Amino acid sequence: MTIERPSVLQPEMPPTRWGDPARATGLPDGVRDLVGLVFPIQDTPARADVEVPAARLAEDLVDGLRAIVGAEHVVTDDALRRRRTRGRSTPDLLRQRSGDLADAPDVVVRPSGHDDVVAVLAYAQERRIAVVPFGGGTAVTGGLVADTEGTGLAGVLSLDLGRMRGLLALDPVSSTASLEPGLRGPEAEALLAEHGLMLGHFPQSFEYATIGGFAATRSSGQSSAGYGRFDAMVVALRVATPVGEVRLGASPANASGPDLRELFLGSEGAFGVITEVTVRVRPLPEVKEYEGWRWASFADGADAMRALAQSDLLPTVIRLSDENETAINLADPESIGGQGDAGGAGQGCQMIVGYEGTPAAVAAKKAAVTEALTALGGAAQGSGPGDAWVHGRFDAPYLRDSLLDVGVLVETLETVTFWGNRENLYLRVKAALQETLGDSAMVLCHISHVYATGCSLYFTVAAPGGADPLATWLPAKAAACEAIVAAGASITHHHAVGTDHRPYLTAEIGEVGAAVLRAVKKAVDPAGVLNPGVLIP
Amino acid sequence: MTIERPSVLQPEMPPTRWGDPARATGLPDGVRDLVGLVFPIQDTPARADVEVPAARLAEDLVDGLRAIVGAEHVVTDDALRRRRTRGRSTPDLLRQRSGDLADAPDVVVRPSGHDDVVAVLAYAQERRIAVVPFGGGTAVTGGLVADTEGTGLAGVLSLDLGRMRGLLALDPVSSTASLEPGLRGPEAEALLAEHGLMLGHFPQSFEYATIGGFAATRSSGQSSAGYGRFDAMVVALRVATPVGEVRLGASPANASGPDLRELFLGSEGAFGVITEVTVRVRPLPEVKEYEGWRWASFADGADAMRALAQSDLLPTVIRLSDENETAINLADPESIGGQGDAGGAGQGCQMIVGYEGTPAAVAAKKAAVTEALTALGGAAQGSGPGDAWVHGRFDAPYLRDSLLDVGVLVETLETVTFWGNRENLYLRVKAALQETLGDSAMVLCHISHVYATGCSLYFTVAAPGGADPLATWLPAKAAACEAIVAAGASITHHHAVGTDHRPYLTAEIGEVGAAVLRAVKKAVDPAGVLNPGVLIP
Repeated sequence: MTIERPSVLQPEMPPTRWGDPARATGLPDGVRDLVGLVFPIQDTPARADVEVPAARLAEDLVDGLRAIVGAEHVVTDDALRRRRTRGRSTPDLLRQRSGDLADAPDVVVRPSGHDDVVAVLAYAQERRIAVVPFGGGTAVTGGLVADTEGTGLAGVLSLDLGRMRGLLALDPVSSTASLEPGLRGPEAEALLAEHGLMLGHFPQSFEYATIGGFAATRSSGQSSAGYGRFDAMVVALRVATPVGEVRLGASPANASGPDLRELFLGSEGAFGVITEVTVRVRPLPEVKEYEGWRWASFADGADAMRALAQSDLLPTVIRLSDENETAINLADPESIGGQGDAGGAGQGCQMIVGYEGTPAAVAAKKAAVTEALTALGGAAQGSGPGDAWVHGRFDAPYLRDSLLDVGVLVETLETVTFWGNRENLYLRVKAALQETLGDSAMVLCHISHVYATGCSLYFTVAAPGGADPLATWLPAKAAACEAIVAAGASITHHHAVGTDHRPYLTAEIGEVGAAVLRAVKKAVDPAGVLNPGVLIP
Repeated sequence: MTIERPSVLQPEMPPTRWGDPARATGLPDGVRDLVGLVFPIQDTPARADVEVPAARLAEDLVDGLRAIVGAEHVVTDDALRRRRTRGRSTPDLLRQRSGDLADAPDVVVRPSGHDDVVAVLAYAQERRIAVVPFGGGTAVTGGLVADTEGTGLAGVLSLDLGRMRGLLALDPVSSTASLEPGLRGPEAEALLAEHGLMLGHFPQSFEYATIGGFAATRSSGQSSAGYGRFDAMVVALRVATPVGEVRLGASPANASGPDLRELFLGSEGAFGVITEVTVRVRPLPEVKEYEGWRWASFADGADAMRALAQSDLLPTVIRLSDENETAINLADPESIGGQGDAGGAGQGCQMIVGYEGTPAAVAAKKAAVTEALTALGGAAQGSGPGDAWVHGRFDAPYLRDSLLDVGVLVETLETVTFWGNRENLYLRVKAALQETLGDSAMVLCHISHVYATGCSLYFTVAAPGGADPLATWLPAKAAACEAIVAAGASITHHHAVGTDHRPYLTAEIGEVGAAVLRAVKKAVDPAGVLNPGVLIP
């Protein structure tokens, strides 16, 4: 049931931009004029003529890899190495745009399946080659940049999982599907849709990100209120490690000691390569309804979300923009998020609420949620804002590229805490960003995910890039991370640790937690070849 | 907010029986006559005059412990050592009843709080003393029996958490409460009820089992369909280890690498002592309704449970007895489970369905579930069976003692699998038990917990104990465990690994999984003093 480039598959991303080049339309004149009112506009194109550093891996090692996966699946050409160099955070893009390809992998290897991965890992361990698993290339926390300095490793191998795109098993009785890691979001959904089923995981990177990446980074999607975080959908994993394979998940939940699935979920390629993910699937929804709600303040809207979550009354989608983000979305319907202003109120905070399922289930949930939100002071705005949000939900990264093209720095970051700490975290992170980037910077925020006990905060920042946008951003990111740590929140809700958040992880899990991660790493990767420099403090 | 023996606290259990001695009424004559129709009846009292082996711990070590927690909290008297020797599995009871106290701890130490535990663990590591955490003493898989043979350890310390019974913090905004590990179920609920809140975790051991034990063994309760397994309620943990403390849970859920909470949940005292558990709490339900449903077969009822779970339409309580268990419950309303036969049909399989919450939420859920179950072929039986179940829900262990008193062997075991494997697992385990124990044995089963992707199977066995009931049972337990492994299911759904299931764990998590557990163990317990012989393959 493997699919070969179906119609749902977007073209491969260029090295310096997000997504499908055909969808990169540039900044519309109207938007450019609007942005120019706030920020200095300066055309800042990406350099296109940059050479990739010479590959370091000795030819006999490359031959050894060819013997395992076949010569045609071992690629050393510069164009592909360049596309495998970094992820899609703004720092990654800025480095690529300015021509910094210092971290390019030496070789790209494309295994056909689990056995190939096992063999490649055994070889990499024996010959001491760093292995960086590569799925959709959408990492935003530096997870694709192996740090081999001082390790004595012979080079870096980008393990491209693009050939591992099968639906390996479907159990309609148990409502589970076993998927290969290289399946991108739309491909996985297309395979399941043939059986009337879906996964229901829609992060903003949905069009490019892969099943393996969702699992390895604990992804969360726009419908996670209704369908759960990706880690909550996973019931079983197969992982290849340098010391052998591990299959976890003999049952939905059990008391057979620690849940080791939860140790490999979020392991970011540092403990092994996830070669099969078994997830809960659901019937395709018959009905989808999205609508807008308006709140007097961010705090009022957040309290309403909390009330729903604590009553176990969550819709499928629920997200709330703060005052700044609401104002931006109203000013520019084509902008980030693109919710538009169907209500016309132009004030307060906008919430998007979505319902999916059978007609009966949607009607029942909608009635109960509408009653609750109305009682809490929300103003229903109908389907206009909801439809606008659906229309633009995967487009923000394209806009970012267009803004980078005119010298405007745009980046996001996110965190999560308990409800009682929400306001404190919000104010601290906002202040840290505003103080570092200056008064002209725009700091927007929305609550993207809610739980009974807490919620995530997702910040979007736009600021003048200046002569060196990377140098402009990094101190702001550091200040935001320090504010998150100081507030006692998690350094990331759904973007993983990578290399960018690694300096802050010990503050969150403690010295003993860090020692546990190092001990597990040593047990499954004694030679330290898996994604060196990523995750492990 | 610590409570000292409130009215909700049951008296300490005697060494050879379950629960409150005042509630051990013996087998009613009518039941004795009924049992006598099936099994040979022979009075088989527990031996009461058995001496506890002499304590092995050198006096200077005991003095060292006294210096840490105070002399009055270091107990070496035989009566208390005897009560701390084993848990409450039938093998544990049979060994105690026959006078086998070989595994008695050498000393019982009662820490006052987290700092005491840290100090005791550091001392135990330095002086090489085994530490067995003791909460309610309700372990049923041999988790209280330290195996020090060949370890060179100086002796065994029972770390009695009975002084650690505080509600340490309550955050009504986040709906979380931080509880000390020694709180028994009713105590925790009483503390929360003062604030109009509840935890909602009701395993059969509820009256004695403790918060720390719930977390360390991944307990599941009778209301887990609605309120979740205990591990799912936990948002944060504080754990004392020999190498220092670890605090986990900066947020409800995040992408900060592996979820290390899930490594300490289910760690059964082998990775550390859980000293604080922060859980999601809920408002006390205003309404509770329990009712019976009757199904033509176990498979029909199971399919209905599956349909509810896969529609995300689970009530608070849902459990289904197979034909054998239904018949037994109908024959004897005072018997195991005690559901009675209000419906009078006397055939098929009985399901208990319970709803708790606000009147509106209960009415809405009940209407939807009733419609679904009716459409699936279920017959509603009204509140009679539900009320009978509520009345007797914590009484089965008392009946077991009475049956052991007359020479009838009674024990339970449980497992969990995906829906597609339910029938296979059921038939295999049932056959293994029946074949080992003989035709006269009664093998009953119910589904106690359901998930979207699978369910647990909880077996109860009654058989003639013979001259040596322990020797009768152990081969049957081994055969059942082997059947579970052969069926690819989990060796336990909610009773933990302990020592009894340890031989089967590697089959479930693989050699790499076992190596990971050993690596973590070595990192946090380098001297191997924590619960030696438990959990780790």
